[in-house]
Amino acid sequence: MTAMHPASLPIAARQLDSAGRLRHFLSTEGLPKDILTSILDTAAGFIDENDVAIKKAPLLRGKTVANLFFENSTRTLTTFELAAKRLSADVLNINIRTSSTAKGESLLDTLHNLQAMLCDMFVVRHAESGAAHFIAEHVAPGISIINAGDGRHAHPTQAMLDMLTIQRKKGPIDQQRVAIVGDIAHSRVARSQIHALKTLGVKELRLVGPKTLLPDSLADFGGTIHRDMNEGIDGVDVVMMLRLQRERMAGALLPSSAEYFAHYGLSPTRLALANPDAIVMHPGPINRGVEIASSVADGSQSVILQQVTYGLAVRMAVMSIIVGNSQNVENTQ
Amino acid sequence: MTAMHPASLPIAARQLDSAGRLRHFLSTEGLPKDILTSILDTAAGFIDENDVAIKKAPLLRGKTVANLFFENSTRTLTTFELAAKRLSADVLNINIRTSSTAKGESLLDTLHNLQAMLCDMFVVRHAESGAAHFIAEHVAPGISIINAGDGRHAHPTQAMLDMLTIQRKKGPIDQQRVAIVGDIAHSRVARSQIHALKTLGVKELRLVGPKTLLPDSLADFGGTIHRDMNEGIDGVDVVMMLRLQRERMAGALLPSSAEYFAHYGLSPTRLALANPDAIVMHPGPINRGVEIASSVADGSQSVILQQVTYGLAVRMAVMSIIVGNSQNVENTQ
Amino acid sequence: MTAMHPASLPIAARQLDSAGRLRHFLSTEGLPKDILTSILDTAAGFIDENDVAIKKAPLLRGKTVANLFFENSTRTLTTFELAAKRLSADVLNINIRTSSTAKGESLLDTLHNLQAMLCDMFVVRHAESGAAHFIAEHVAPGISIINAGDGRHAHPTQAMLDMLTIQRKKGPIDQQRVAIVGDIAHSRVARSQIHALKTLGVKELRLVGPKTLLPDSLADFGGTIHRDMNEGIDGVDVVMMLRLQRERMAGALLPSSAEYFAHYGLSPTRLALANPDAIVMHPGPINRGVEIASSVADGSQSVILQQVTYGLAVRMAVMSIIVGNSQNVENTQ
Repeated sequence: MTAMHPASLPIAARQLDSAGRLRHFLSTEGLPKDILTSILDTAAGFIDENDVAIKKAPLLRGKTVANLFFENSTRTLTTFELAAKRLSADVLNINIRTSSTAKGESLLDTLHNLQAMLCDMFVVRHAESGAAHFIAEHVAPGISIINAGDGRHAHPTQAMLDMLTIQRKKGPIDQQRVAIVGDIAHSRVARSQIHALKTLGVKELRLVGPKTLLPDSLADFGGTIHRDMNEGIDGVDVVMMLRLQRERMAGALLPSSAEYFAHYGLSPTRLALANPDAIVMHPGPINRGVEIASSVADGSQSVILQQVTYGLAVRMAVMSIIVGNSQNVENTQ
Repeated sequence: MTAMHPASLPIAARQLDSAGRLRHFLSTEGLPKDILTSILDTAAGFIDENDVAIKKAPLLRGKTVANLFFENSTRTLTTFELAAKRLSADVLNINIRTSSTAKGESLLDTLHNLQAMLCDMFVVRHAESGAAHFIAEHVAPGISIINAGDGRHAHPTQAMLDMLTIQRKKGPIDQQRVAIVGDIAHSRVARSQIHALKTLGVKELRLVGPKTLLPDSLADFGGTIHRDMNEGIDGVDVVMMLRLQRERMAGALLPSSAEYFAHYGLSPTRLALANPDAIVMHPGPINRGVEIASSVADGSQSVILQQVTYGLAVRMAVMSIIVGNSQNVENTQ
Repeated sequence: MTAMHPASLPIAARQLDSAGRLRHFLSTEGLPKDILTSILDTAAGFIDENDVAIKKAPLLRGKTVANLFFENSTRTLTTFELAAKRLSADVLNINIRTSSTAKGESLLDTLHNLQAMLCDMFVVRHAESGAAHFIAEHVAPGISIINAGDGRHAHPTQAMLDMLTIQRKKGPIDQQRVAIVGDIAHSRVARSQIHALKTLGVKELRLVGPKTLLPDSLADFGGTIHRDMNEGIDGVDVVMMLRLQRERMAGALLPSSAEYFAHYGLSPTRLALANPDAIVMHPGPINRGVEIASSVADGSQSVILQQVTYGLAVRMAVMSIIVGNSQNVENTQ
């Protein structure tokens, strides 16, 4: 499926409509700053004074959101399902493994059928990089795609909830020194975080990890590379830990999870090197004792569970912005 | 389960209430023309001027629709789920394989329990012919059954969406020459289509297929039998292709899918034998290159995806007619 | 997971908030009579004059109920899902076996994440005794737990629907002579029934079963033990049969299902020993011919299906009482 590889494609262009407004949300890469900011502002509007995103809104009433999860993720599926329901949409969870694709129907036939059933939005998660882009290229004009994670490529709503967390817990992004620690080479989360941080003008960006998980070539992303974690998190305001995939531990890339923790795990001692009021983030699910100590994950500087709540607000924001834009198109035609 | 065989039963009577109104929708067989017409008219009312069935209606508010799919079909399940949600019903998808029937509870006990939970309507799909009739015979007075496909017997909502498609794309059924092509002997879709077409007064009906999939005895249905596909579709207004089940190809009935396509596949050359403005229909999912060429399935005469959209409208129509009838009963008692 | 065993814990205290109102519903054990009575009264309010619990209410609008079923039970899941939807809640069914717990995330991490997604209520079913209590101890202040069955420990909504059934079909609990028959030792249903019956002042309670399924020590519960079923149900007003788990029949505890039926099955002859207007109850799913004869299960004294309908009303009652209490807390803070 070589057509699905997005590497050479002008990504920003494909996410925006002809008026420059968000139509699909596939990647943070290449999106203009004002669109990222509007997502953050809209998300903040769903959050109440107690930092709890509870406001139910009828913004997607009569719309149908279909969750197409080709890769299993109960947690991410649940937040998208909840976000759509809080916006009063009808929600379909399509069980791909028992669907017609198993009967030999192609992905595009499945897609065209769901489209003919008048779904308005597809939330897509797929193990292959570029899958959401591929689908976005082939849907009808009125339909929008939200990428809920594709291979090693992008996970843009995760990145935006991370931006919202930094903004609300630490202040403007352009005043923050941020370290991303771990398996950056294989992480769609890291890629989307880096693009969002750069676009929002992060003050300093450090990428921390061993050579096997963070080759020198990734300096092209625009951060400084640090092999020594103590040095990497020294004085930062935000520590963004990545989940270490178990398959990396089983493979040749890493000696053992204990040795990984010794070098790149976030222990209380290491965290003490960051600014005293630094926050600790993690996209979850966490591997306790592998990339992060339990006491840090559950500690006072951790905002890991707050990220989950903000994730609900960010997904509501993206959905309502996209639907608002598509309705404007309908109204002016 | 011999009691489930519906062959000898007066089917029409069992679908209608004592006032002659639709209570269950089990089969197109034996239903009077005015009921089929009312389904088509009601469905048309859900479709807007752009041919898109989007109107959300509160007609099933407070009602519960339970989808009982003993046979897997994500696509059909999804359209029923969507139809019920657009009518504002509460929808339950009962996962039969993990339910109490696996613990040795009988189908009837499962059914009686769901009924006691106050479900108003069951949408039933089952591999065994007659299953929906069997269930309809055993439910309480206030509950309605919609057959979403039972064995080789009937798939009435599929047939009615096909009728709606013909009517909207070609005009009155009684002015159309129609060919049904493929595995007619084993197809519940074909059986339901034939009954609906005859009742609605189709101008000419041709049944096309090899002897193994279309025995001479099927001439009793009322169509003319054609072994030669070129002859069968010559000059028709509507070509209704059937899905070839893969198990037929594996079995002794067919030599190979390539040979099947050579004789009964709908190629562009063959389609040229039909009327120039003939439409091509297929219930999906399609086997590209087996019963239909990709270029025909995706071509300008194909209305295959339009059928899916109309399917949503037809299912909404059947559900709202049945609920309307049951409410009238309640009101007059 | 020794922390999950609830045996030594002051259960009542953990279900009530500081004002003595129901916060979690984990067990009927130790709950004051007025709380059990308020559940019955509230449930009765959802039932109409035809004994059908159909009233849809907006009491949980904007609330999210998450069903966490670690142990499979389509039937119980369905009633909780329906109850929540009739109260206008958003409902999530979390598929635990495909969730992050399978990826090595702990139960508590999963729980904290769902909590961060702003679920208001968890309905928990788990094979291990004490699971619901364990979870209740670890959730945030605003969140409530309903136990939908934990190991051999408790199934309180089942017990309360049984109380409602007795009350509506036979009158006040304190005027009834009740026999519970079967595998009492291994039954969470029986334990919850016994506690509810005692608190509501049952006139007489008899426990009936063989020594392997009803050791003498269970006399501590407060009922009289009967090895002879004829003696046990003689003159009672209510016969509560228990489901015999198939694993008991396979094991050493029972000789065969036929022999079990001969000694402890409810046949028409045996039922004739009870009061002529005695009712027959069973939590379902029933094993026909094992613990109960088909003719009795389907007979005129059986209220088994009525129990299912009342179960919907009881679950709506528990959910709305708990949410009402939590809202009062919010308002007064």
